[in-house]
Amino acid sequence: MITSRLPRTVTAWRPLLVPLVVLLAWDVLVTVAFKAGWIEFRGITIQYTLYGTAIALFLGFMVNASYARWWEARTLWGSIVNHSRNLGRQATTLLDRTVPDARADLPGEIVRAQVAYVHALRTSLREQPSPPEVADYLAAEPLARVRSSTSSPTAVLSHVGRLLAEAQQRGMVGDIARVQIESTLSVLTDAQGGLERIKKTPLPVQYRFLPSFFARAFCLILPFAVFKDLQWWTPVGSGLIGMMFLLAVQVGRDLADPFLDRVHDVPMTAICRSIEIDLLEMIGADTPEAVGPVKQVLW
Amino acid sequence: MITSRLPRTVTAWRPLLVPLVVLLAWDVLVTVAFKAGWIEFRGITIQYTLYGTAIALFLGFMVNASYARWWEARTLWGSIVNHSRNLGRQATTLLDRTVPDARADLPGEIVRAQVAYVHALRTSLREQPSPPEVADYLAAEPLARVRSSTSSPTAVLSHVGRLLAEAQQRGMVGDIARVQIESTLSVLTDAQGGLERIKKTPLPVQYRFLPSFFARAFCLILPFAVFKDLQWWTPVGSGLIGMMFLLAVQVGRDLADPFLDRVHDVPMTAICRSIEIDLLEMIGADTPEAVGPVKQVLW
Amino acid sequence: MITSRLPRTVTAWRPLLVPLVVLLAWDVLVTVAFKAGWIEFRGITIQYTLYGTAIALFLGFMVNASYARWWEARTLWGSIVNHSRNLGRQATTLLDRTVPDARADLPGEIVRAQVAYVHALRTSLREQPSPPEVADYLAAEPLARVRSSTSSPTAVLSHVGRLLAEAQQRGMVGDIARVQIESTLSVLTDAQGGLERIKKTPLPVQYRFLPSFFARAFCLILPFAVFKDLQWWTPVGSGLIGMMFLLAVQVGRDLADPFLDRVHDVPMTAICRSIEIDLLEMIGADTPEAVGPVKQVLW
Amino acid sequence: MITSRLPRTVTAWRPLLVPLVVLLAWDVLVTVAFKAGWIEFRGITIQYTLYGTAIALFLGFMVNASYARWWEARTLWGSIVNHSRNLGRQATTLLDRTVPDARADLPGEIVRAQVAYVHALRTSLREQPSPPEVADYLAAEPLARVRSSTSSPTAVLSHVGRLLAEAQQRGMVGDIARVQIESTLSVLTDAQGGLERIKKTPLPVQYRFLPSFFARAFCLILPFAVFKDLQWWTPVGSGLIGMMFLLAVQVGRDLADPFLDRVHDVPMTAICRSIEIDLLEMIGADTPEAVGPVKQVLW
Amino acid sequence: MITSRLPRTVTAWRPLLVPLVVLLAWDVLVTVAFKAGWIEFRGITIQYTLYGTAIALFLGFMVNASYARWWEARTLWGSIVNHSRNLGRQATTLLDRTVPDARADLPGEIVRAQVAYVHALRTSLREQPSPPEVADYLAAEPLARVRSSTSSPTAVLSHVGRLLAEAQQRGMVGDIARVQIESTLSVLTDAQGGLERIKKTPLPVQYRFLPSFFARAFCLILPFAVFKDLQWWTPVGSGLIGMMFLLAVQVGRDLADPFLDRVHDVPMTAICRSIEIDLLEMIGADTPEAVGPVKQVLW
Repeated sequence: MITSRLPRTVTAWRPLLVPLVVLLAWDVLVTVAFKAGWIEFRGITIQYTLYGTAIALFLGFMVNASYARWWEARTLWGSIVNHSRNLGRQATTLLDRTVPDARADLPGEIVRAQVAYVHALRTSLREQPSPPEVADYLAAEPLARVRSSTSSPTAVLSHVGRLLAEAQQRGMVGDIARVQIESTLSVLTDAQGGLERIKKTPLPVQYRFLPSFFARAFCLILPFAVFKDLQWWTPVGSGLIGMMFLLAVQVGRDLADPFLDRVHDVPMTAICRSIEIDLLEMIGADTPEAVGPVKQVLW
Repeated sequence: MITSRLPRTVTAWRPLLVPLVVLLAWDVLVTVAFKAGWIEFRGITIQYTLYGTAIALFLGFMVNASYARWWEARTLWGSIVNHSRNLGRQATTLLDRTVPDARADLPGEIVRAQVAYVHALRTSLREQPSPPEVADYLAAEPLARVRSSTSSPTAVLSHVGRLLAEAQQRGMVGDIARVQIESTLSVLTDAQGGLERIKKTPLPVQYRFLPSFFARAFCLILPFAVFKDLQWWTPVGSGLIGMMFLLAVQVGRDLADPFLDRVHDVPMTAICRSIEIDLLEMIGADTPEAVGPVKQVLW
Repeated sequence: MITSRLPRTVTAWRPLLVPLVVLLAWDVLVTVAFKAGWIEFRGITIQYTLYGTAIALFLGFMVNASYARWWEARTLWGSIVNHSRNLGRQATTLLDRTVPDARADLPGEIVRAQVAYVHALRTSLREQPSPPEVADYLAAEPLARVRSSTSSPTAVLSHVGRLLAEAQQRGMVGDIARVQIESTLSVLTDAQGGLERIKKTPLPVQYRFLPSFFARAFCLILPFAVFKDLQWWTPVGSGLIGMMFLLAVQVGRDLADPFLDRVHDVPMTAICRSIEIDLLEMIGADTPEAVGPVKQVLW
Repeated sequence: MITSRLPRTVTAWRPLLVPLVVLLAWDVLVTVAFKAGWIEFRGITIQYTLYGTAIALFLGFMVNASYARWWEARTLWGSIVNHSRNLGRQATTLLDRTVPDARADLPGEIVRAQVAYVHALRTSLREQPSPPEVADYLAAEPLARVRSSTSSPTAVLSHVGRLLAEAQQRGMVGDIARVQIESTLSVLTDAQGGLERIKKTPLPVQYRFLPSFFARAFCLILPFAVFKDLQWWTPVGSGLIGMMFLLAVQVGRDLADPFLDRVHDVPMTAICRSIEIDLLEMIGADTPEAVGPVKQVLW
Repeated sequence: MITSRLPRTVTAWRPLLVPLVVLLAWDVLVTVAFKAGWIEFRGITIQYTLYGTAIALFLGFMVNASYARWWEARTLWGSIVNHSRNLGRQATTLLDRTVPDARADLPGEIVRAQVAYVHALRTSLREQPSPPEVADYLAAEPLARVRSSTSSPTAVLSHVGRLLAEAQQRGMVGDIARVQIESTLSVLTDAQGGLERIKKTPLPVQYRFLPSFFARAFCLILPFAVFKDLQWWTPVGSGLIGMMFLLAVQVGRDLADPFLDRVHDVPMTAICRSIEIDLLEMIGADTPEAVGPVKQVLW
């Protein structure tokens, strides 16, 4: 997530560089061709308005859908933040360490496993290798099981469930309280499922392909429309309008897939670290530093 | 679901082939007729803008409604994924196999029935015959009952309910835990009902018929509008604009009915297989291969 | 609900017949008047674009709101379907017929009352007299009470509640299970309330009156705008555009009130019959035939 | 709420009267000024289209937001209807009048207090004095407390809560049932909070001020744009377009604040009376007449 | 929040002052340049329409998203209002002060801590120092803990949780009632999480930067388009249109970040004071004055 008002990082602009240069070169070429008399056209107005209407239609569909995906992803991560905190509070206050059969470090183990969970979910969504935090916060035995599983976050969450079952067997938690903690796990499962749905189901191919195709086609024919009026200013006028349409397409693309480890990502690293700090504070452990923006990008 | 950025499969383009060829032929015909002096028209501007506005209105309604249907269908399947996992976790951890009257393979039977359920739901939505998985994962007696019922998925889910009742009669599960598992069944019923609602209630006929009709009528009169400006380029200009409107109609159609066993379907086969793998892992059974895209289409 | 792709029934087109004939007659009249030199006008472009924009604005508000009402109505009926099934499953599996004081036919009575409920709700929404199903599925005493009440569906649902209370008094159902069944009744009450809200609260008068008024006014002045360009083709061009705006208004109207016993209704008869079949199957009773489309209209 | 298709009451049109007369007078003045040669202008097209686009943008934001507010208000009142019924059903069926310490008229008192609640909420939202129903349905002691409180509806609902607490102290209701009734109270609190949120948070000032300002400015310059084409017809053409924009602004205003005791209000009087009838029927008391529309306005 | 219909405070207009003055100066400059013959241009129509369409697209995305953020923030605060009241009611009615081990002032302490919570949340969102209310309503020991924590509101809410745990240890509250109160705390956590999500996740940079950039670029080229028609009136016509686009951008900005301690904020001070009054009334303590608008701005 870019935190500055004006995106200064080169990365944010890179996907636009090539199209813009090509666009400008083409605009100059057409202008020169007209001026040199190589081609000749009469004023063509009506098509451009219709074309513009149709493209606006496509772009409207696409950008709205993309923004909705991005915001849903952010909201689901918000839900994971809230319910991780809830799980931490429940683990530390509802588990009774005074019963005869109690294991005193069980609440802490649950909290640490939850920290491992959010980091595993983050890297799983970004298709990165398992992060060091998973190894740091899990014991050897569950770590081995997580490493051999197909889905790390699901395996870690199952481990939390198993710790909870152990708490009940030891008599550290009653029926009603256990149901409450399990509801928290259910909400976490739901949020994870929603994130994976966004990850695994891209925008329909029509939304990905068509707006981009038509916007580019539009840029190709644009200089023919404006030459008569703008003469040598054609590259400026045509380039400006073309850039707007290309940018709109790019906005849609950047928002549609919020887990690609790019500058427009939902800032999962920062979110996970913030959960980590909150949870470790609850069990009185040392907390790492918060993650700040790097070159105005929060990862 | 098409997974590539550019749909390369012929199937994706086939519904557009005939309209596009007809459109182009018509555009050429009108151009020739003008050039040959067979017909004569004065510049007609105002109608086209109004026409374009009205069609954009219709298309906007239709495509937005279609996308909402498609995404709701996908979200409901996501809910089935999450709660199938929840059911599996609950069946394997909440049922107590140590009570005197316990039947040790009951949890596994519930999990296997749930696998049969999702496959039965998938084929039911696609109006296909009962899949092999239903026979594989159900015992002979419930299978017979499912085969004789009018709605396979409902019958399989009832079977899960019956297994749960048996667990309670055997004392394997307490009151509160049973309520929790039954809530999971309720959510599954709700999601199934939502999917059947989308399946059985097509877009209103006005949304299906009118945009397509008006877009095609528009394509018919388009070359008359642009001939004066474009001359021999008329088929190109007119064809391009016409194609955009036809494509927008097609996008709406492809998304409106996401269970027709076409390339634009919600990828139910892949989703069901992924549930199958997750659930079978839980009971330690052998798991099949995940389903990958075939010619860049995930079914 | 019309099930065919192209609405062939006369009923679907009837509300448009008179406006379209009047529209065409007017267009011809204006054309003749121009040709005969009775009236004379200079080209008027700018107003039409502004007018078109304003009307598109109004129509957009209205059709979107209407579609949302229609889809909400359909979704609420979907909720009634799901929770009628849930009620049936709960009545047949959670009530214990083996306790000493049990009345063996109580579950069946609850299920049959629920069938009466959905039919009573359907006719109440369509403002029809009480259907035969209410008399068929209720005993004499509750039937009398329902008939004397102001709201049949509410009275039938109260009867279900009373049967449930009887079950508890007889010891056939425990506390927690009763709470679960009562939650189902609550959801049904909520869905019924939502349907009655849509029924009793029409679209705001501004949404009903203004789009229709302005679209018609627009049709009146349209031929003046296009005569100069289209000459004798004026009725065709003007009629086509006018028809699109009138049709958009009509789409909004047809969807805004989905319980008027018209071809565009939510297909409540078919939905109720399908609930009836599902519920009767659960108690092993004879089931009626499903309702199919009549002349491509599903009621 | 206006129930007729065409709003006939003078009140509905009054806010538009002055602007329309002023608009028409201005249009006539400009036309005369042109005809008399006092002013002279060249054709100005482009600004009007841009102006129209920008105003449509503003109006679209405003009317959509207003309609959403109106519909949310209506839906929240629907929720109050449903849960008032639920409260009535629960009070009459879940409270046990046969326990030794029971007070037989407690359920009736709860139901009557709920009737007082909805009327108190209605007048509180309309900023009217406390209605007679509050005095009719409350005993002297709670009435005094309600009258001395800052928020009548909250005070009445607290009274319901106190009656419920009394029922539990007398042993008339068990733990689980009480939780269920309290959940109903919670939902009522939530709906009340939502209504007060809509009441206390008007549309952002930008949405209230800007569309109106720009629409009026547009009306001022409109006759200059159309005079060249329409000549003496200018007041008609310009007035018609101007009226549409002013009407759109008015639609937004009428819907944005649905509790102002105006003809466009959510019909709270009718809704409250209908709850009153339903609840009184439940305890077998005499019911008042339903509220019908007065001069086609339902209050 | 501005409460007057016309924003009179200087603050509301200040961010627009500089752009408007610059805009007007530029328009005058261009007009003079044309009149003086320094520059010469042919009529340029088509680009402006396309440009306008593209900008409307961007502005539509941005303002809609901003309004949704603002309204979600207001709704979440509404949820905090409702559930603060619920917590107050539950603390005062569900805690039993008659048990032997009871601490009579515990309910009051919970209520006062909740007052501290909402004020802490308000200042935390506005990035202000801890308000006096936190010190007023918390005892010395929890106050110290809150001051040393990284997130004040979370720390206060944890304190409420601890008081609740104390109540259970003292036997003042049973299992089911505690679960109910804890659900209220969960909803508060969720609402707080949602507010922090809106605070910490600004609109995507594309939505913040691009509409503003393009609207300003548009203002720069606007006078060239209208000079031919408007001559010396160019600054008026061009300035008016330019102002509309700049205002639309400003509306989006003002709504996008509703916690910046500006005149367009969600009126958190007033909301918190109103919660304070409600809660203090519940425990019979003295209440402060409600917060009214200052110079027509409610903070």
